[in-house]
Amino acid sequence: MADDLSIKLAETIKKIKPFNEESASLADHHSDRLTKPPGSLGKLESIARQLAGISGQLWPDLSRKAVIVMAGDHGVCEEGVSAFPQAVTPQMVMNFLNGGAAVNVLARQAGADVVCVDIGVNADLAHERLVCRKIVRGTANMAKQPAMTREETVQAILVGIEVVNEQVKQGFRLFGTGEMGIGNTTASAAITTVLTGLSPEESVGRGTGINDAGWLNKVDVVKRAIELNQPDASDPIDVLAKVGGAEIAGLVGVIIGAAANGCAVVIDGYISSAAALVASRLAEQSKPYMIASHLSQEKGHLKLLESIGLSPMIQLEMRLGEGTGAVLCFHFIDAALHLMQEMATFESAGVSKG
Amino acid sequence: MADDLSIKLAETIKKIKPFNEESASLADHHSDRLTKPPGSLGKLESIARQLAGISGQLWPDLSRKAVIVMAGDHGVCEEGVSAFPQAVTPQMVMNFLNGGAAVNVLARQAGADVVCVDIGVNADLAHERLVCRKIVRGTANMAKQPAMTREETVQAILVGIEVVNEQVKQGFRLFGTGEMGIGNTTASAAITTVLTGLSPEESVGRGTGINDAGWLNKVDVVKRAIELNQPDASDPIDVLAKVGGAEIAGLVGVIIGAAANGCAVVIDGYISSAAALVASRLAEQSKPYMIASHLSQEKGHLKLLESIGLSPMIQLEMRLGEGTGAVLCFHFIDAALHLMQEMATFESAGVSKG
Repeated sequence: MADDLSIKLAETIKKIKPFNEESASLADHHSDRLTKPPGSLGKLESIARQLAGISGQLWPDLSRKAVIVMAGDHGVCEEGVSAFPQAVTPQMVMNFLNGGAAVNVLARQAGADVVCVDIGVNADLAHERLVCRKIVRGTANMAKQPAMTREETVQAILVGIEVVNEQVKQGFRLFGTGEMGIGNTTASAAITTVLTGLSPEESVGRGTGINDAGWLNKVDVVKRAIELNQPDASDPIDVLAKVGGAEIAGLVGVIIGAAANGCAVVIDGYISSAAALVASRLAEQSKPYMIASHLSQEKGHLKLLESIGLSPMIQLEMRLGEGTGAVLCFHFIDAALHLMQEMATFESAGVSKG
Repeated sequence: MADDLSIKLAETIKKIKPFNEESASLADHHSDRLTKPPGSLGKLESIARQLAGISGQLWPDLSRKAVIVMAGDHGVCEEGVSAFPQAVTPQMVMNFLNGGAAVNVLARQAGADVVCVDIGVNADLAHERLVCRKIVRGTANMAKQPAMTREETVQAILVGIEVVNEQVKQGFRLFGTGEMGIGNTTASAAITTVLTGLSPEESVGRGTGINDAGWLNKVDVVKRAIELNQPDASDPIDVLAKVGGAEIAGLVGVIIGAAANGCAVVIDGYISSAAALVASRLAEQSKPYMIASHLSQEKGHLKLLESIGLSPMIQLEMRLGEGTGAVLCFHFIDAALHLMQEMATFESAGVSKG
């Protein structure tokens, strides 16, 4: 069974096409004809180049976009790592489904759908718009035992891939990563510590807003979880299983699935970036499909992004997750494509070159 | 005549109301009831607070927005400070009017109007959508004499105020600053040097893209212009006249005019920030009406923003001007207002507090 799952994952990774340098060069060439000093639109030009290299088209149609919000609970909440009770996870899932959370508001503004997936919530949830793909009812407490089994972990990654496959069938071509899971900055810090070599003091932040004593405890919990479980840094699935979470594994699947479908995926904040790091270790070839969005307030986020080779576009001092930063970035993706399509060229506008 | 103009300017400055702390506190209070950890939306919450304090309303209607693009030429181009010929200024003005420049594309996406003003272009321009308010036909070469007279400078500021007044009458309530003027990063660097105490080496950047030799020359030109004209740092209009430009003075007027009309104004890149610095020195009370947008690639921009007390939201490595960064930020202004209006509260969504 576990082997079958791993084979499915390996097959998906094999589908990821190399970045199309030829299309990217054509985009650069077009960009240099537009009425502006070469390179003066900065990262908007880089995004246009990247989208061309991903899609093989000069300006792909990305009008249908979705943020995939994976929700899961964390046994490590027993250790008092969060400022909010675990009950908030299912409550916020219902809020997503009823359209009242920050990510819903921002997605409506950006013309994006919110796809909410129960992949590991520790509660029974039912709603016509909920995608029910529960792999665990909350993870185990990683300070006492591995958070998940290896099989559960691979299953959760496959859920992410399948959710993206379904959305691609419906015509969606651009994805954002989002998540909800009280306790998941603790798991993300543990993953970051193991895979980047940062110390827990560097990778642990204040999540939803813990105080100094809470932060010291959270650092200690991460240290104990790593000490106890001895995750193998050379085996990303082992790390994800022992100190990760179902929604983080689901996002690894979303990222790999998007890449396998030839779609760009916008990475949200700290938790999503931890998933992106795991995805990049499982499938190096998924990296060109990733677009970093914002720099969150969570300590260690910049170093985490740098370890993947990503650089954020927005600095709004946000620390909410849900995919809020990714969805804000959709405006910039649209901007990059509009500029490519609609700007006059030096020739067409009769503007002199430098 | 000059005195009459100064009286008009002083009267406009007197109209600027103090920031409404009561409305801002009500916005904070509302924000803390929304389903998110307090403060977790970062600068989006700060913007909501600021817009409430500016407008006196919990969430003002800012659906009608415009970017005011002031265009003017610079005599200092004789000194070889730019990678582009001066002819590009009028050519780009026509491009703005025909909707083909980057700022047009981004404004269409953001639902904003582009208002293009000829305040100092060294060419005869005619177009049905051009606002013709020419004060000078290009400035004089500041390396040889003052760029403008004091009277021209105050006239140009008043043009900015009048353009905003006209837009406010038409229902516009949010403004962005934009500009076009080959050579205007040189003038902006000179203003920044005089008013902040930064050295020319710190304040002079590469503009549209000059090489090392060009940069050394530009630093030298700024030094010579300041040495020759001896602008009085305690008199912002003297600085603007001697080493500034008509479009920069126009933007000073746009900022002061927006504040006098109780409207927020989004500051674009380096040139707009130099105008914001002058506005803040002429009218300290205009500062709460300013919202910084992006951090440009122009050297010295961060220190310039910091000297006004502003902090950028976007880092896209852009260096185009035109108002492109300000217009991109309009999405975030809209986002802040949508969040205030549309997010569920802890009570309405049944979500537990921390």
